[in-house]
Amino acid sequence: MHSTVGVIGGGQLARMMIAPAVELGVTIKVLEEAPGMSAELAATGVGDYRDLDTVVEFAQTVDVVTFDHEHVPQHILRALVDAGVPVHPGPDALLYAQDKLLMRRKITELGLPSPDWAAIENAEELGAFLDAHGGRGVVKTARGGYDGKGVRVVDDKNGADDWFTALAEDGRGGSLIVEELVDFVRELAQQVARRPSGEIAVYPVVETVQKGGVCAEVIAPAPTAGDAVRDAAGPASATTVSDAAREIAVRVAEGIGVTGMLAVELFETRDGRVLVNELAMRPHNSGHWTQDGAVTSQFEQHLRAVLDLPLGSTRPRDPWTVMINVLGGPAGATLQSRYADAMAAHPAAKLHGYGKDSRPGRKVGHVTVSGESLEDVLTDARGAAAFFE
Amino acid sequence: MHSTVGVIGGGQLARMMIAPAVELGVTIKVLEEAPGMSAELAATGVGDYRDLDTVVEFAQTVDVVTFDHEHVPQHILRALVDAGVPVHPGPDALLYAQDKLLMRRKITELGLPSPDWAAIENAEELGAFLDAHGGRGVVKTARGGYDGKGVRVVDDKNGADDWFTALAEDGRGGSLIVEELVDFVRELAQQVARRPSGEIAVYPVVETVQKGGVCAEVIAPAPTAGDAVRDAAGPASATTVSDAAREIAVRVAEGIGVTGMLAVELFETRDGRVLVNELAMRPHNSGHWTQDGAVTSQFEQHLRAVLDLPLGSTRPRDPWTVMINVLGGPAGATLQSRYADAMAAHPAAKLHGYGKDSRPGRKVGHVTVSGESLEDVLTDARGAAAFFE
Repeated sequence: MHSTVGVIGGGQLARMMIAPAVELGVTIKVLEEAPGMSAELAATGVGDYRDLDTVVEFAQTVDVVTFDHEHVPQHILRALVDAGVPVHPGPDALLYAQDKLLMRRKITELGLPSPDWAAIENAEELGAFLDAHGGRGVVKTARGGYDGKGVRVVDDKNGADDWFTALAEDGRGGSLIVEELVDFVRELAQQVARRPSGEIAVYPVVETVQKGGVCAEVIAPAPTAGDAVRDAAGPASATTVSDAAREIAVRVAEGIGVTGMLAVELFETRDGRVLVNELAMRPHNSGHWTQDGAVTSQFEQHLRAVLDLPLGSTRPRDPWTVMINVLGGPAGATLQSRYADAMAAHPAAKLHGYGKDSRPGRKVGHVTVSGESLEDVLTDARGAAAFFE
Repeated sequence: MHSTVGVIGGGQLARMMIAPAVELGVTIKVLEEAPGMSAELAATGVGDYRDLDTVVEFAQTVDVVTFDHEHVPQHILRALVDAGVPVHPGPDALLYAQDKLLMRRKITELGLPSPDWAAIENAEELGAFLDAHGGRGVVKTARGGYDGKGVRVVDDKNGADDWFTALAEDGRGGSLIVEELVDFVRELAQQVARRPSGEIAVYPVVETVQKGGVCAEVIAPAPTAGDAVRDAAGPASATTVSDAAREIAVRVAEGIGVTGMLAVELFETRDGRVLVNELAMRPHNSGHWTQDGAVTSQFEQHLRAVLDLPLGSTRPRDPWTVMINVLGGPAGATLQSRYADAMAAHPAAKLHGYGKDSRPGRKVGHVTVSGESLEDVLTDARGAAAFFE
């Protein structure tokens, strides 16, 4: 087996790979963007992931390259592959996490359900789509968006003119995407892991609650996910929400050739459909519950997958686990300053801090609680998280 | 709160503090004895823990000092305390983990049950004890023993002459300990954590199976620990094995003023008594099951305790967890070389590697499995561990 995993990017996702790497006895090295980032403890290099020489130099010190984020440019990924470096996920898969337009085309090509969507190049094309969809839509940039950035609800054909102008000015041209405003009852996320040799492990589908475009709370498994579903994955055999989510994620993982963790963000619509919203090819916020709530955490699973080791059990440890994100407050406030009170009041809560400076709205940690009763688990998790507001 | 924990000693116990430190967002620094030890990832210093300057210099970089082992000399511990460094456990407590004769005296003074024992200074005193105890006994050196070292079964008054000679030659003199050969049905271990402010958290008592003087297997909780007990803790109210174990450990922790994790190794005798065997004031092999089997692992709990943070829930995550140690085989064999086969056959097993070179008999990792059925859990854990034999 490969024994040294190299992670490009020093954020909290890289940080949270450290614990399972240490426990498995796998060496982990991180290329961080700047000194003192979240994954500092495992950092062996500092540099710009957009610089070929920096990345190649780092890659020469490890056995397999993986990622804290999806932003490493394609030409660098391909240079690594050409040099014989195992890269997981590989560039052919990561492309669909980097470009939402390519992703939408691929999901449609795979016969999987998306919201209605169109590639648009000007205000007239946007206007035509809005006219056909009740006058409103969601416009997205194909590249560069995350946590609600690069996403905008519009009700006017000129509502994305600034983005069209920016696209024209950057010389590369290209399209925006417009999607129907989905009438969803809730958002779900389905995670799977896939090894290079093809083995796939499926986690329970979870419910994600967003606030301000950012994931706030995750309930695992998603309540009532055994309910019947309509028209989930085209003409598929899926008859429940959880079956539909599983089938979609497995077909995406195999159709795109993902290696490592894949998260498929989903809409469950008022009329009983399950639609693909976004893809992420790395450990994902919707899977932080697995650290404390599943036999194999998404971070351990990602390491096993990129090392092409057999995947671990995804069994939940308790009937319910709830994960709540902790967002940064005023500068100077630290997560740790509230530990004593939070721990005293909530001895069963698991507190996770990312070692990041606090800034308003920035994800700086999370809390999980597991147990038998969803109501009790929610109360306990929200109570603990409230100490960090 | 203190935010940087300094660990003296770079072995696997220090290594296993890294994961919870990273997750809590607590900074951990390790003073390792030599480069490349098990806890290398968190090592910020290399040096001899018996050298005052080395230890003081390290202590100046942290907020609280704790330990991977119990071997730091008293004069160094006391120098740290005199310099105002929080040391947990402190020298007054650690003394009883460093010197088995002092420990036996203290346990007896606390009114807690030991095997019959005596301090002996020559073959005649040993002979007198053997004569009174059926001709056999266990002789122990007061200092320096672990994993069966410094412990010997004798049936002859001259059976410890070499140790008496060595004691005389090292100029410090002192006594050996002799203990009755206890007719035990099994060995147990009871862990508690205690904060400087006095709070105590109690783990379920576990059964430990020794092979060749080394812990081989742990079953958590100990089966049938609810059974009635006789004369457990003197005139105490304990009526079951688990009550007796709990009462003994709590009284030791409070009586000695332990801070951090305490493990009390116990004998359960054929005639239904629970006797104190050994003490360990640090995370302990008998508690490795908590990493995967309890809400709060002993390593997180130790960090919380030494930082004087409120202690976490000790609730088991599943009805049963079994931990099996992996011992090193022929030089050159690595734990990782067997991962693919072990993981494929045992997807629910949690594999822990210490990043240590393999030597016959050396602890290089462990396996845990948790679940509903003890029989299934044992089969699964033993099956996984067998890949590393």
